[in-house]
Amino acid sequence: MRTRPLKVALLGCGVVGSEVARIMTTHADDLAARIGAPVELVGVAVRRPSKVRAGIDPALITTDATALVKRGDIDVVIEVIGGIEPARTLITTAFEHGASVVSANKALLAEDGAALHAAAESQGRDLYYEAAVAGAIPLVRPLRESLAGDKVNRVLGIVNGTTNFILDRMDTSGAGYSEALDEATALGYAEADPTADVEGFDAAAKAAILAGIAFHTRVKIGEVHREGITEVTAADIASARRMGCTVKLLAICERAADGRSVTARVHPAMIPLSHPLASVREAYNAVFVEAEAAGQLMFYGPGAGGAPTASAVLGDLVAVCRNKLGEATGPGESAYTRLPVSPMGEVVTRYHISLDVADKPGVLAQVATVFAEQGVSIDTVRQQSRPDSQETGGEASLVVVTHRAPDAALSATVEALRKLDTVRGVASIMRVEGE
Amino acid sequence: MRTRPLKVALLGCGVVGSEVARIMTTHADDLAARIGAPVELVGVAVRRPSKVRAGIDPALITTDATALVKRGDIDVVIEVIGGIEPARTLITTAFEHGASVVSANKALLAEDGAALHAAAESQGRDLYYEAAVAGAIPLVRPLRESLAGDKVNRVLGIVNGTTNFILDRMDTSGAGYSEALDEATALGYAEADPTADVEGFDAAAKAAILAGIAFHTRVKIGEVHREGITEVTAADIASARRMGCTVKLLAICERAADGRSVTARVHPAMIPLSHPLASVREAYNAVFVEAEAAGQLMFYGPGAGGAPTASAVLGDLVAVCRNKLGEATGPGESAYTRLPVSPMGEVVTRYHISLDVADKPGVLAQVATVFAEQGVSIDTVRQQSRPDSQETGGEASLVVVTHRAPDAALSATVEALRKLDTVRGVASIMRVEGE
Repeated sequence: MRTRPLKVALLGCGVVGSEVARIMTTHADDLAARIGAPVELVGVAVRRPSKVRAGIDPALITTDATALVKRGDIDVVIEVIGGIEPARTLITTAFEHGASVVSANKALLAEDGAALHAAAESQGRDLYYEAAVAGAIPLVRPLRESLAGDKVNRVLGIVNGTTNFILDRMDTSGAGYSEALDEATALGYAEADPTADVEGFDAAAKAAILAGIAFHTRVKIGEVHREGITEVTAADIASARRMGCTVKLLAICERAADGRSVTARVHPAMIPLSHPLASVREAYNAVFVEAEAAGQLMFYGPGAGGAPTASAVLGDLVAVCRNKLGEATGPGESAYTRLPVSPMGEVVTRYHISLDVADKPGVLAQVATVFAEQGVSIDTVRQQSRPDSQETGGEASLVVVTHRAPDAALSATVEALRKLDTVRGVASIMRVEGE
Repeated sequence: MRTRPLKVALLGCGVVGSEVARIMTTHADDLAARIGAPVELVGVAVRRPSKVRAGIDPALITTDATALVKRGDIDVVIEVIGGIEPARTLITTAFEHGASVVSANKALLAEDGAALHAAAESQGRDLYYEAAVAGAIPLVRPLRESLAGDKVNRVLGIVNGTTNFILDRMDTSGAGYSEALDEATALGYAEADPTADVEGFDAAAKAAILAGIAFHTRVKIGEVHREGITEVTAADIASARRMGCTVKLLAICERAADGRSVTARVHPAMIPLSHPLASVREAYNAVFVEAEAAGQLMFYGPGAGGAPTASAVLGDLVAVCRNKLGEATGPGESAYTRLPVSPMGEVVTRYHISLDVADKPGVLAQVATVFAEQGVSIDTVRQQSRPDSQETGGEASLVVVTHRAPDAALSATVEALRKLDTVRGVASIMRVEGE
């Protein structure tokens, strides 16, 4: 074993960074044995140097991240700052000064992954980012390497713990969205500003990364259709229950049937209770991968949190250090298929539509005609007079579940339904997946 | 991209080998793009050259596997023959002649993995074997690489599809073991000689491989405690049901609580229906991995079959070819902890014991005394007069579930119980896991 240590710089020392530093210290011997050389933490860049950080030598703390990555003797830079800048500049600077990079930065990779990969490659360095998607769950490496000899057709999963926690609470307790969000915030599952999670930005970034790797192409976060969970109501969840389903925020990446394009989307969807994703509780993540030869695989585990994310970061650190010792680099970007990303309208999906309609004969015929005009075939219809039909002036509820159709046709159907006199309101629209 | 192809030799062309050859042909362009050079199948060693093999150039077929691996121009040898010899000699010969090896041979790796790794290392070649454990499910690579910065404490899973199919059938249809085995054979899930599967040899080989990788030590198949499913009865399954459990053949690898030894075992066990492994149906596999930082991860998918196993082989082929082009090697054996393997008696586990006892006062006190003498604490007892108590001369059934205790104490308890006059028979003994 080499005795001269590999030098590591840590950018960011929050929930994840402090765990990375802690494990690097407490498990130093194991890491050295697995890498073939000791690793030494030589600097930790933070914003608030005065904060007490247990177990970290205060002499390592600096506020000058740029100077740290420019030292020239750093073997690996671990970036757990998050966000676009200064992370992007620091990473490219690190490459220019001879370091490889391990990052957990999903937003940056989904925004600018191609440029970062190119920067790594031009300097002969590694860019690893297992921790950017689904925390501790090995997903980037299995897709990049284990399935490198297979053809992935679909990735479908729960990749955001905060929203899964909220939807799970709504499902189990009957709580509304706001109430469940408050509980998630109180328990530390949601941040003070929950926008990135509840509006689906976080999941969309992960979907972009997963789609790019799975289909060997480039997908940017802006190409991912995104709907969050803020408009999911207790009534939607109750509707799902009646159908034997539950509601999950899903990230879905698919290769088109003709193989000539891909799609990536994030939206709430009803899935059958019998589907394995339906039983993913609280803040856990789980991802299905469907590949031509492998069939259907599932990966499950904690999708966030300091220690789980640190586990993924350190796995990458070991790999990158081994590569460095072997004067090799791991797999870089694989985007040779250059498949275009189709818009949401072309995705083939199913809708569950719940309408408040006038409680009188002929309404179903009118509604069915609208579906037929848009070329959307109906799977099931359930029509029910509301118990308060007298008070509401004779109102019934009509629940339609469609067969598979292009999303554009389904969404045009909903627009046309809204214009019918007999349709008093669209109570709930949700896609149905996992069948 | 390099235009000169990497040369691949295939040893064995059965269910897996023929799929490997097929995908290498049909997906040649994708493989080339992902590797950075084309791969060319230059020889296929088989036992029966006269068999028609669709899609394989007859000129590639040879019965002389030794000559094939000795050619000297082979970059990668794929070994899917199985068994100890001639596979072992062919693999070492391949290393000596400059090739890296991708193998699906669990029996050989569990018997002689250390020597094979040493042979690979001494020649600067790769030995990859994702396909040896749990078919298409990425498990070897996640353990070797993704979790390389973490400390794995436990691996628990269903790693044999044949036995899972049989137990699943017994559970869902109430069939006995023989009947379920016949069905598995008829459907192609069990081989004509099912010994390796039903006696747990196949699962034990996988447990040895997983334990070695997970704990960075060496575990040989002979050190794995092994019990098959041939003695699992319909009554055991019914007993499990009454406890809210099902019966699965589990492979369990654990680090001892003091961290100074490991254990590996394969045996049928009752697990609660609420445990995710309980819902693994038919011939699917699923493996839980518990690591210090990552927490609890699960991997699920098809554990056998030609195409899924070929997917794992080809993932390894891509990795090994990339290494070859980069003049690097992947991670070799990591056995630095040199942790000893403790015998089964030291494993801490729980027993479910069902006794046929005399239906008279004082029996429970007698039985409870035996448990106390062995230092085994009882969790629950259920005592029930049998409906045919009159005919059997007054017999009752006594079902005891213990707390956790060393397996040796539990097994000594059962022996002592057998000697009690009031105990007419031990109807069922099974360990309880997954709580």
